[in-house]
Amino acid sequence: VQPAQLSPVLAEKGSYRHFMEKEIHEQPEVVARTLGAYVDQVENTIRARDGLDFSKASRLLIVGCGTAAYAGEVAEYWFERIARLPTEVDIASEFRYRDPAFLEGDVALFISQSGETADTLEAMRLCKAAGLITVALVNTAHSTMAREADIVAPTLAGPEIGVASTKAFSCQLAALACLAVRAGIERGHLDTASVTDHVAQLMAIPGTMSEALRADGQIDQLARDLSRSEIVLYLGRDQYFPMALEGALKLKEISYIHAEGYAAGELKHGPIALVEEGVSVIVLAPSDSLFAKTRSSIEQVRARGAHVLALTDEAGAEALEGLVQASILLPAARGAANLMSAAVAVQLIAYHVAVHKGTDVDQPRNLAKSVTVE
Amino acid sequence: VQPAQLSPVLAEKGSYRHFMEKEIHEQPEVVARTLGAYVDQVENTIRARDGLDFSKASRLLIVGCGTAAYAGEVAEYWFERIARLPTEVDIASEFRYRDPAFLEGDVALFISQSGETADTLEAMRLCKAAGLITVALVNTAHSTMAREADIVAPTLAGPEIGVASTKAFSCQLAALACLAVRAGIERGHLDTASVTDHVAQLMAIPGTMSEALRADGQIDQLARDLSRSEIVLYLGRDQYFPMALEGALKLKEISYIHAEGYAAGELKHGPIALVEEGVSVIVLAPSDSLFAKTRSSIEQVRARGAHVLALTDEAGAEALEGLVQASILLPAARGAANLMSAAVAVQLIAYHVAVHKGTDVDQPRNLAKSVTVE
Repeated sequence: VQPAQLSPVLAEKGSYRHFMEKEIHEQPEVVARTLGAYVDQVENTIRARDGLDFSKASRLLIVGCGTAAYAGEVAEYWFERIARLPTEVDIASEFRYRDPAFLEGDVALFISQSGETADTLEAMRLCKAAGLITVALVNTAHSTMAREADIVAPTLAGPEIGVASTKAFSCQLAALACLAVRAGIERGHLDTASVTDHVAQLMAIPGTMSEALRADGQIDQLARDLSRSEIVLYLGRDQYFPMALEGALKLKEISYIHAEGYAAGELKHGPIALVEEGVSVIVLAPSDSLFAKTRSSIEQVRARGAHVLALTDEAGAEALEGLVQASILLPAARGAANLMSAAVAVQLIAYHVAVHKGTDVDQPRNLAKSVTVE
Repeated sequence: VQPAQLSPVLAEKGSYRHFMEKEIHEQPEVVARTLGAYVDQVENTIRARDGLDFSKASRLLIVGCGTAAYAGEVAEYWFERIARLPTEVDIASEFRYRDPAFLEGDVALFISQSGETADTLEAMRLCKAAGLITVALVNTAHSTMAREADIVAPTLAGPEIGVASTKAFSCQLAALACLAVRAGIERGHLDTASVTDHVAQLMAIPGTMSEALRADGQIDQLARDLSRSEIVLYLGRDQYFPMALEGALKLKEISYIHAEGYAAGELKHGPIALVEEGVSVIVLAPSDSLFAKTRSSIEQVRARGAHVLALTDEAGAEALEGLVQASILLPAARGAANLMSAAVAVQLIAYHVAVHKGTDVDQPRNLAKSVTVE
């Protein structure tokens, strides 16, 4: 057993009531720090990482557990769209036992805050033994995964004390967004202008997250009603689909409300049967190219009496006026920055609902910070 | 609008109370019929399909909505394990808008009972336009998808009247199990003895499902208590993980109970926070190589007071004696046959819970049989 490595300063809550609250609010800072490890601001590009070359990759396999797996699912959208790199995401506990099939040239990336998650570590060992290039995306530089991987991709979130991951998750997303752009460069899908634009989008993330944090007070107010819900559905499309899954997981973990995330397009294929008068539905509805489809899902659940809370921007809120019970106003950003402002919102929702319910936010029942046994 | 094509005889419930009940019980027959379209019993092999050659495939992409997507997720385990064919499963409404990346030689398979599911059809058109070989796995021979696909892989479930899919789903699984073995042959991973063994396993499916149907009475009894649950969690590993998702979807669709499926290995990464005294957990726990791990998940939820119902076989029931509140006894079969007896069990659970709750089993609220608009 190693002595705790936390400095007293880092492990203090300061003016915050809970570590989770503190960690949500320090995200702009730690995400900026993480971006700094990837972005070359002089050359306006993403730095290469020694030994990691996406140009010849057949596929990218991403493996993780829980929140880390959802970060991977978000990144699948980025790697396929930006880098045209076929990407497959797996839950570690499934991956390691399902005898997965590989293609020559597959690159495998493993996500774990602690770098010690038992199933993820074993999945990495399996891939290493199969001859794949392995990348460990970890928050703990001296962890087993960091030691054993071919390549370490760091997140610089600092020690995360709250059991429900917040800042480690957003730093994972920031690092993955950078790696997707790097892959796009290496695979020849981005010209200089596109790279510059992507880097500008990435550098906008911390500011966008800061702006999203300003919804704190409004979310606190809305959380009072939400905390009386028995069921909460989260809906989203595209990169907001795994964010809906993460929003539901966060709420489950600390408020014990049964929440479930769904791809909005799947609503009619089953889950809409659950919707009746008073059921709470949280919809991730940025005013992007899929907004009309998301709006249509909102109309369907509203027609069955659902109480709808939209996470959207100013244009979206205007278009949803009168249709939804409330809109949480998030900044209108592009790409990963927009996604990560939604991350802040779902974290704040879970946090405030839990506080209203009076649960133990930083130490939710039944859960451990790192799952180092199967 | 076309006139209904059902013959009066086929659309009768006979001695059954609901179409869903009838359709659950006719599965051994329609699955046998579907197997007959794939299995060559004289040569003890799976027939080749004109135009479909897995030997050169880079990947298999499987796309569907709702239950059809879960059939695809089960099949991923089969194609990767039996045929070493990397497989990626997507929800159609996500796939068609996420600008997916392809590899040269990707084969794309689309699953739809009706052959008219709007998102799945458009996903197929996208792949066709991208130059991929497209396969339509459909139950309706004269559907748009059957007409437009390069290759049709039929299911012979006959008309399915109940809105919640049962026999179409199991016929999809049967066809996919055959195609996975065919892929294994074409890719040189199965010798004659293995093929013979696989064919024997496939031909055992209808008998195994018949035997599973004998749990009907026991499930009816257990369903009375379950029908009072507010939340039901379904847990499974490997091929039983997507079956846990399907079990939860079925229960949601017709009983309106909020059910959710999880990979058992993910329990500690969040969902166990939900478990408290009296929460119902249904565990798919065949006595296979992962049984010890599944048993450990059962111990964890039991320790928090969950009411556990295990779907298992005689050996499993014995090993779980005293640990779980009840075991539903399913036949001990191998591979796909074992999976499909679990399918019968989760269908019967949903059916009987809905009957006890008094919901409209064949026409659940808010749902349509085929989702032919977005």
